[in-house]
Amino acid sequence: MSGSLAFSVIATDKNSRARVGKLQLAHGTVTTPVFMPIATQGTVKMMTCDDLETLGATIILANAYHLHLRPGEQLIERLGGLHKFMSWRHPILTDSGGFQVFSLSTLREVTEEGVWFRSHHDGVQRLLTPEDSIRIQEALGSDIAMCFDEVVSYPCPYERAKLAMERSLAWAKRCMKAHRDKEQMLFAITHGSIYDDLRKESILRLVDMDFSGYAIGGLSVGEPKEVMFELIEMSAELLPEDKPRYLMGVGTPADIARAVALGIDMFDCVLPTRLGRTGTAFTSFGKVNLRQAKYADDPSPLDPNCDCLTCQRYSKAYLRYLFRAGEATGPRLNTWHNLHFYLRLMERLRDAIVKGNLDIVVKEMVNLFPEDDGGVKE
Amino acid sequence: MSGSLAFSVIATDKNSRARVGKLQLAHGTVTTPVFMPIATQGTVKMMTCDDLETLGATIILANAYHLHLRPGEQLIERLGGLHKFMSWRHPILTDSGGFQVFSLSTLREVTEEGVWFRSHHDGVQRLLTPEDSIRIQEALGSDIAMCFDEVVSYPCPYERAKLAMERSLAWAKRCMKAHRDKEQMLFAITHGSIYDDLRKESILRLVDMDFSGYAIGGLSVGEPKEVMFELIEMSAELLPEDKPRYLMGVGTPADIARAVALGIDMFDCVLPTRLGRTGTAFTSFGKVNLRQAKYADDPSPLDPNCDCLTCQRYSKAYLRYLFRAGEATGPRLNTWHNLHFYLRLMERLRDAIVKGNLDIVVKEMVNLFPEDDGGVKE
Repeated sequence: MSGSLAFSVIATDKNSRARVGKLQLAHGTVTTPVFMPIATQGTVKMMTCDDLETLGATIILANAYHLHLRPGEQLIERLGGLHKFMSWRHPILTDSGGFQVFSLSTLREVTEEGVWFRSHHDGVQRLLTPEDSIRIQEALGSDIAMCFDEVVSYPCPYERAKLAMERSLAWAKRCMKAHRDKEQMLFAITHGSIYDDLRKESILRLVDMDFSGYAIGGLSVGEPKEVMFELIEMSAELLPEDKPRYLMGVGTPADIARAVALGIDMFDCVLPTRLGRTGTAFTSFGKVNLRQAKYADDPSPLDPNCDCLTCQRYSKAYLRYLFRAGEATGPRLNTWHNLHFYLRLMERLRDAIVKGNLDIVVKEMVNLFPEDDGGVKE
Repeated sequence: MSGSLAFSVIATDKNSRARVGKLQLAHGTVTTPVFMPIATQGTVKMMTCDDLETLGATIILANAYHLHLRPGEQLIERLGGLHKFMSWRHPILTDSGGFQVFSLSTLREVTEEGVWFRSHHDGVQRLLTPEDSIRIQEALGSDIAMCFDEVVSYPCPYERAKLAMERSLAWAKRCMKAHRDKEQMLFAITHGSIYDDLRKESILRLVDMDFSGYAIGGLSVGEPKEVMFELIEMSAELLPEDKPRYLMGVGTPADIARAVALGIDMFDCVLPTRLGRTGTAFTSFGKVNLRQAKYADDPSPLDPNCDCLTCQRYSKAYLRYLFRAGEATGPRLNTWHNLHFYLRLMERLRDAIVKGNLDIVVKEMVNLFPEDDGGVKE
């Protein structure tokens, strides 16, 4: 790891494990806890980079799997890397492709070497190895690369979870060995399904390898929410204090607030963008489903307490109509609002940690968003 | 017509019939020649009102037919009118529904009373009369309403064209009688297919009724381009100097530049937005089709001479990739560029009229966009 890349804790909450940190990356410094909008295919759906800057996003997530298949990392590298290709000048984290190979492709076969899969575009059979994933992520030139891992679904028998955890460990070692780019951080992904002892072993052995940061993988895949939080709590306690902790694919505003209190620093989730596109908004009164008939002639904004572009100018009646009329302006304006909500939530959480009133924000989010609709990954 | 609504010519070209005018409307003053982006369903596709303001649009076109069917003019009126509903504070022209009834609905039957048609949404049979159209446009509260007309396709036999012209005249009279809103201008639409004598009669009899403005309808529907320009020239000469002239549904940058030289003041066309969404851009080198393979690794912007947001930041390679990946950001960025191109073209045409070098801009556009791909209406 280059001397310029570093993580430092700058404030801690006296009543919880929450902390505010500075993550210095090749393309800028990110203040944590942070939410990373998802730019799966090299664009946050419905948003341009200008939009994301206006909204105050500081780091986004792109997917090595998608960009490898189209347009291909060689093309992106030839054009100067992903930052230049998509014109995003700030940090990018790339997911390794592990999760996507298991969730999006078909006819996969896992061997010690890697994963054989059929692309969801052309059906062609391909092999993706840990070394391939690192090579792809280095070609993309992201600020943070993730180790290639084997992801299991839920529920998963103990022996199956143990084998996948062991394989992910072996692959993490190969990723670290293959990783050359000193301007790129490499994060490990801890696994073990819902089994405490497997999670603990995964963490301890990965921490031993000394990665730049650690993700908690394979959660929010269907397990009971309280099981998820117990595993997050245990994991955060075992992970080193001086390295960033990233909870992958989580979650609702309530999930994020609770996980921040448990010591998580980084988040990504499709909820604000996916629900944005399908007509559900996060507001200071809870969720609003714009497709409901009661909003047909509602002249009020999505959230009168919100200062985003959408709420400053457009009514629920108009937004609902745009969705019904199939106009892309509806998904765009609602995505804008939801990303604004998530990014402002992170700001509030950081402020609350510094001011020592994090519990108030957590309680508020748990009350507003009580549903167990978990996190979803793309 | 209210005293505050007026049209005045403020500059004329000494070498052509082109003029620069000021059109004072209820929601602001529009400098002509002007291009009206199309907001068929109460939104310019892919664009928000903020975007249109940034781009410098001063008046947009919405469709009475679409808004009547969904969400209904009663709802819009209850919510304060179309301006408030869609949060557009500047002028709006509404098309009467005549063209759309003939182009979008099925099983239509034209009677003296009006048009029986089946909605393209629900297939329910409905009658739309001239009085209905005016009532709808008044409920929407647009700045300019259009008379309800009978539109014929091309080619059209003389007798058929004559009957439709006569019927449109009778309907225009009924529209004028039904029209009550003193804050809304009412424009007539001249017809007559490609027949000089019918066009002339239509114009003279409509001018006799003294409307606030006059549109040339039923052109750019398949007739040879030179026939279209002859009819535009003849029409513009017959139309009063002190009223705005609006050429409906036209056209390419070359068509618009040539029509401006013939004395046309107002334009609408789906080309910049529709081609924007399908990957074709208007540039200072001519058209660029982003779907062509040669742009796959082209790091240059759509147009290095363009100062729009898209060209300042994104490469052809990235835009092409976005279209291929099915990401809405592609259509959005390309629509942005095309509207910028059209709105800047109108600015150049107005400047050229004042400076006396309109012929240079017309020649440039004719050279850049020689194709006969006409105008298209939504």
